[in-house]
Amino acid sequence: MSVDWSGLYAQRLGRMETSAIREILKVAQSPDIIPFAGGWPEAELFPLEQISMICDEVLSERPREALQYGLTDGLPLLREAIAGYMTARGMAARAENIVIVSGSQQSLDLVGRLFIDEGDTVLVESPTFLGAAQAFNAYGPRYVTAPMDEQGPCVGAIEDLLAHHRCKFMYLMPTFHNPTGVTTTLARRQQVVALAREAGVPILEDDPYGQLRYTGETLPTLAAIDIAAQEGDPERANVIYAGTFSKTLAPGLRLAWVVCPSELAEQLVMAKQGADLHSNTLSQMIAYEFLRRDWLDDQVERIRSTYSARCDAMCEAIKAHFPPEARYVRPEGGLFLWVTLPEGLDTAAMLADAAAHKVAFVPGAPFFVEGGGQNSFRMTFASVPADTIRRGIRILGDVIRDHLARL
Amino acid sequence: MSVDWSGLYAQRLGRMETSAIREILKVAQSPDIIPFAGGWPEAELFPLEQISMICDEVLSERPREALQYGLTDGLPLLREAIAGYMTARGMAARAENIVIVSGSQQSLDLVGRLFIDEGDTVLVESPTFLGAAQAFNAYGPRYVTAPMDEQGPCVGAIEDLLAHHRCKFMYLMPTFHNPTGVTTTLARRQQVVALAREAGVPILEDDPYGQLRYTGETLPTLAAIDIAAQEGDPERANVIYAGTFSKTLAPGLRLAWVVCPSELAEQLVMAKQGADLHSNTLSQMIAYEFLRRDWLDDQVERIRSTYSARCDAMCEAIKAHFPPEARYVRPEGGLFLWVTLPEGLDTAAMLADAAAHKVAFVPGAPFFVEGGGQNSFRMTFASVPADTIRRGIRILGDVIRDHLARL
Repeated sequence: MSVDWSGLYAQRLGRMETSAIREILKVAQSPDIIPFAGGWPEAELFPLEQISMICDEVLSERPREALQYGLTDGLPLLREAIAGYMTARGMAARAENIVIVSGSQQSLDLVGRLFIDEGDTVLVESPTFLGAAQAFNAYGPRYVTAPMDEQGPCVGAIEDLLAHHRCKFMYLMPTFHNPTGVTTTLARRQQVVALAREAGVPILEDDPYGQLRYTGETLPTLAAIDIAAQEGDPERANVIYAGTFSKTLAPGLRLAWVVCPSELAEQLVMAKQGADLHSNTLSQMIAYEFLRRDWLDDQVERIRSTYSARCDAMCEAIKAHFPPEARYVRPEGGLFLWVTLPEGLDTAAMLADAAAHKVAFVPGAPFFVEGGGQNSFRMTFASVPADTIRRGIRILGDVIRDHLARL
Repeated sequence: MSVDWSGLYAQRLGRMETSAIREILKVAQSPDIIPFAGGWPEAELFPLEQISMICDEVLSERPREALQYGLTDGLPLLREAIAGYMTARGMAARAENIVIVSGSQQSLDLVGRLFIDEGDTVLVESPTFLGAAQAFNAYGPRYVTAPMDEQGPCVGAIEDLLAHHRCKFMYLMPTFHNPTGVTTTLARRQQVVALAREAGVPILEDDPYGQLRYTGETLPTLAAIDIAAQEGDPERANVIYAGTFSKTLAPGLRLAWVVCPSELAEQLVMAKQGADLHSNTLSQMIAYEFLRRDWLDDQVERIRSTYSARCDAMCEAIKAHFPPEARYVRPEGGLFLWVTLPEGLDTAAMLADAAAHKVAFVPGAPFFVEGGGQNSFRMTFASVPADTIRRGIRILGDVIRDHLARL
């Protein structure tokens, strides 16, 4: 007789649904689909030769260290190198402010684990990165949401929500937002940082794409603005900053980091001990060597030039092939472009038609934790060559027109 | 002004203490300490040449796959290879019964996440692996405990506990138990598996050391006994089996797996999506190549012959140098040997003296979730050469005598 597992599961299972994105990625892996879905970096840009060379060196010079158990907080040399990298970018940090984690998804899980009691309130953007909701949901939060426009989350809404709810933290992605591609303006950044500190509510700043800017001026991160107001003292930070190597080196390494006051870092380390003891050691050594040899900036430059051209190609193709009812904001960087169609259109239904014509995207609804967004969708240009982008956008334009005609 | 983080933390933080073992590992990393503490494998036995060769091949032949995002449930080829490996060991499994995880610690975290609501009861051995308690504690269980003797956990106690408590699952380590080194007898294995099924309470069988047997006959795992009684149908299993590559290949790879009915595997995958998306791809390819080329058994044989000699050396040295009041069970395999001293001795206090004499071990108390065990301690012989073992045990014998004299 089979065991009745469903009678044994914890209640949190009702809140944890399989990520729409991951399920779509399975479909999108079919090689004949034009993959505007997903958020995969372009594998042709992985720094293969450098990674191979470093692997060789590490496995011949420090093999036992590379394969042995390591410290939960991460390789000391890597923590120090990242602290330097952060400091150079206006986010003063020492090694004790850095926790190495197994990909950014783990940053979200550990922050959720540290702060969320069942029923606690978390403030997120609407739409927001659905992987974040998936991480937090294991701990049973309620959400309040600040709507996004083309300048970032609405500051008035945040002020209002902070006044009326006891929020545990705010989860924000101010730079090349996933899914909307929007970059929060400098003015809004400053306002949000000030509001958060005033309210005593920390910000979790998720910054997976920050280095990938194609146009416009680099803006300070929320963490940089916050720490500058505290005389550059990382121990007084109110922003927990999440960085990653997934979009600059390679996602398969599963390597990312958190920057925060050392008191909080110690708690994150304790949470990580219970979750996975420590992150892959060889990956940490690869990342360390990239930083030590100053190879990361060149690698980022290569990625930027390719993605930038693809972003242009997608925007031009949209102008040429999408009906005027399809609205979008041209991204200044990152991986994603967000399209909003007239109310009443259902992009989930549209996806079935698009997939039949061999084009995939991500319907917008899963990115709205409080519902809505059925008329929007997300596309990536990063991992698709320009001519394929043009072909895919033309097909998608026809699918959209077809659905508009049926409205 | 600094942020008051402590006012924001979730209640679970009170239950999650920094692992005593991890803290001790920090001390034990000092190169002049004889490291009987910790559970590190011998780094000299890592299959360096083979891992280097595989890395080379993978990074030149399938580099983009090795560095790109992967599926949450794991590399399909690796899941299939592990299913074959399990089946050959009496634990019939198909690929859909295997979930690849980022080290065994993650197996414990994900099972806890899936089953434990705050206040739920989990049955564990006493003493038990403290990393398991650390994983489960994030989800707020109560524990009931079955005392261990030299034949494994007491079956009468388990029967009694199952009758009087609604347990969500039992966590057991029947083979070369951490910390006691005890191997549960065949008779008790059969009884426990039958009791669990009768009560409708699944077993989480943690088996990190199962391949490392030095003397005596190989016993079927709980999973094998359970599945044999179900006509070899993995979908009807009541045992969730956790295996790992940490003790056979290398812990730095952070690679392990769970075997369970596919329905449950899907839920584990969903939980893992929120936790860390997927496990390191290069590590998965390394493990796959070891299985495909049939290299794992030879590797295990090398480890067994070294550890077996060290286990003998430690047992002989104990006979020669420990006072007769120190009781222990000679392990048939694994990494650990457990010593019980007369009541009233405090091994935590003893550790300070031992460390002053450059020997480290792990005091027993943290392994008892309901308290007690102050007069016991755990040692590993696996990562210490035989002559160092003899030297360390002699020193420790003097420390024990000294503390006995003060009783």
